[in-house]
Amino acid sequence: MRVQPPKGFRDFTPEVMLLRKRVIASIEKVFQRYGFDPIDTPAIEYWEVLAGKYGGEAESKLIWRFTDPWSKREYALRYDLTVPLARYYASHRNTPLPFKRYHIGPVWRHEEPQKGRYREFHQCDADIVGSPYPEADAEILNLVIDVFGELGFSGYVIRLNDRRMLAGIFEESLGISNVLPVYRVIDKLDKIGSEGVRRELRQLGLNDSIIDGIMDIISIKGSPDEILDFVEKRYGKNKNVMNAINCLNRILELVKDLGKVNLDLSLVRGLDYYTGPIHEVVLTEFKFSSLAGGGRYDNLIGMFIGVDVPATGVSIGIERVIDAGLELGLFDLKVKSVTQVYVVYMDERFFDYAWRVADRLRSMGFNVRIDIMRRPEDKQRKDARRINVPVIAFIGEREYNSNMVTLYVRETGERVSLKVNEVKNYLSKILG
Amino acid sequence: MRVQPPKGFRDFTPEVMLLRKRVIASIEKVFQRYGFDPIDTPAIEYWEVLAGKYGGEAESKLIWRFTDPWSKREYALRYDLTVPLARYYASHRNTPLPFKRYHIGPVWRHEEPQKGRYREFHQCDADIVGSPYPEADAEILNLVIDVFGELGFSGYVIRLNDRRMLAGIFEESLGISNVLPVYRVIDKLDKIGSEGVRRELRQLGLNDSIIDGIMDIISIKGSPDEILDFVEKRYGKNKNVMNAINCLNRILELVKDLGKVNLDLSLVRGLDYYTGPIHEVVLTEFKFSSLAGGGRYDNLIGMFIGVDVPATGVSIGIERVIDAGLELGLFDLKVKSVTQVYVVYMDERFFDYAWRVADRLRSMGFNVRIDIMRRPEDKQRKDARRINVPVIAFIGEREYNSNMVTLYVRETGERVSLKVNEVKNYLSKILG
Repeated sequence: MRVQPPKGFRDFTPEVMLLRKRVIASIEKVFQRYGFDPIDTPAIEYWEVLAGKYGGEAESKLIWRFTDPWSKREYALRYDLTVPLARYYASHRNTPLPFKRYHIGPVWRHEEPQKGRYREFHQCDADIVGSPYPEADAEILNLVIDVFGELGFSGYVIRLNDRRMLAGIFEESLGISNVLPVYRVIDKLDKIGSEGVRRELRQLGLNDSIIDGIMDIISIKGSPDEILDFVEKRYGKNKNVMNAINCLNRILELVKDLGKVNLDLSLVRGLDYYTGPIHEVVLTEFKFSSLAGGGRYDNLIGMFIGVDVPATGVSIGIERVIDAGLELGLFDLKVKSVTQVYVVYMDERFFDYAWRVADRLRSMGFNVRIDIMRRPEDKQRKDARRINVPVIAFIGEREYNSNMVTLYVRETGERVSLKVNEVKNYLSKILG
Repeated sequence: MRVQPPKGFRDFTPEVMLLRKRVIASIEKVFQRYGFDPIDTPAIEYWEVLAGKYGGEAESKLIWRFTDPWSKREYALRYDLTVPLARYYASHRNTPLPFKRYHIGPVWRHEEPQKGRYREFHQCDADIVGSPYPEADAEILNLVIDVFGELGFSGYVIRLNDRRMLAGIFEESLGISNVLPVYRVIDKLDKIGSEGVRRELRQLGLNDSIIDGIMDIISIKGSPDEILDFVEKRYGKNKNVMNAINCLNRILELVKDLGKVNLDLSLVRGLDYYTGPIHEVVLTEFKFSSLAGGGRYDNLIGMFIGVDVPATGVSIGIERVIDAGLELGLFDLKVKSVTQVYVVYMDERFFDYAWRVADRLRSMGFNVRIDIMRRPEDKQRKDARRINVPVIAFIGEREYNSNMVTLYVRETGERVSLKVNEVKNYLSKILG
């Protein structure tokens, strides 16, 4: 009998889960600070809800789709939390705008399993539906800065671009009629290098002067001001380009830490649905996949209801954040258990009394274990050490006879015997 | 374009999610008080992992199974969190025992959609792997009592039985060779009544005297002591029956509130894998499906690794708990947003200052919204009222010129103007 999870899927042990819960709690706290409220949507959507939204490989290979053997209906597991948000809004049309929602949950991708790439992973998304203004995009970026600050990351940068700027230049100045395949090639720049990008652009049928134009644009380096000045001088007559420049300028005015933002014209993002500012969080200290990414997608909801509703947001990948944080030493897996107090009884004569003491300690709000394996005292102590419990509450003959308990604080070696009803204040001080 | 979730699936709006999060947090707090630690397993398992574990309709109709169109591999969405726990333990054999884990997450069942019955719902499970003793079962029952106490339920009872008692009587005294189909019929008692049970037992080929014997046993009423005395006198020579009686007696000694426990010999639970004490939480005040259920399953892990490892636990159904709590008035959906402070600016001249004030308030730890729709002041106030925000922070000309903010506490009507850096203490008192 096979006992491993399916290939590309993982079990999470308690110490990993406890870290995951700390990370998710930090992210969720920041989402709430910005006044985002939670929603949830099903893991399963009708296939046609996801179809035609992502484009490229995402669409053709990476969505987990299946036919229900009973109804023959085609379903899919959700691929991200953005298309489900659009579908949610479409079916809740009376939701007042702006709709600021966060959504934390698993998504599924039919990837070839490999290191750091999973078939099930968790996204933390914050999105604003209803505002077409750069204030909304800036709020998302400030939220991202606060999230990574809260998590303890400092060596990172937010790459920022605007698809309208690329579209304006590509379509109107370089005469490219369909920019989406071009974006998908540029998206591989990190993987295949600029020669690889040139080669694949040639395969799309573009001639060398157009390709030179593309490579020129995506290679521009400089401060945000320098880059925007350059683009404005060269392509400023283009309306799309000017809209993007004005939007990016306003975003840069409102961002709380400009040092964290790099304007980067080679950023395109892989999914078809983006229409405006786009961004991605990358580490500066060592090479790692992006930890978060997002942008504006003003047409996606319109694909469901026929009327466009502007929207912008970000998606933070828990698994990558955790892998990076562990590698950087920001996180650790030292906490093995939530247990704060382990009630150890000398022998079975005292079990029922110890059981009631454990119950009292729980009613005071502490996380308490007591042996339920009928083990001798030394085995109980060994178990307490194994889960690294901070306090042992010992019950022997003396404690039993005097309605007391002896507390042993493992870190300091402190030992004190107290009446059971006096324990609360003492333990609260120790356990914080 | 279809915009509803698939039939039997649901979206959760913010007010519903905020209630769900409160309920889950209460349950999780109690799980942690008992020293249970979290794990997670994938939504998807290989079909053969789930096959042969549940029996009956669960197995043949209710598991969401599908063939991956690429690999032709057969997968299934997890049907509960118990079989995944057994599979988890089997693949983590070095986990020290007892392994006390909790697991909160969605499960999927291919039910016919109807009121109160969903194809995706969330279970909160706490289980102990490794202890064969009634102390472990008693700990689970005390945890259940604390969970429902924490949630505010009082009018409920835990129905308790032991499958070994039924098996002993059915197999050895009534000569029934395969008890599982008999359990599945008895499990329908609430739905089809005792005449229906008799009819279906006849369809299994049992004769009337055996059926009378079954109906006698499952109809016994009385206090736990009375019932156990009666069963011991009549069937006490049977080893299975005596094991069950001793186990139940010990559980009843250790349960923290005996008034919450009903010994009920008609309780069988629907799934094949139970082997010992079983239990179910039902409301006494009005008719409702069980809110929680569980029991001992000492052979399930053995199906994966060939060696039995004892295990016992409980599963709490969030959806039913919430439906019941709303109906009983224990819960409400009044909280519409996490937002605590809404920064209202008089007109766009003050937006950038208001933006920085919002940022300061967030850095103090408050949940803050500011308009990102470029709306006039009256629309901002309307939005603040809509989400029922407790405090409005107003920015007008005077506040702008003096680096101040005017706070308006909506419930009391209190109004005070403060320097921005003096706001924290005041707001902390208001918002707790």
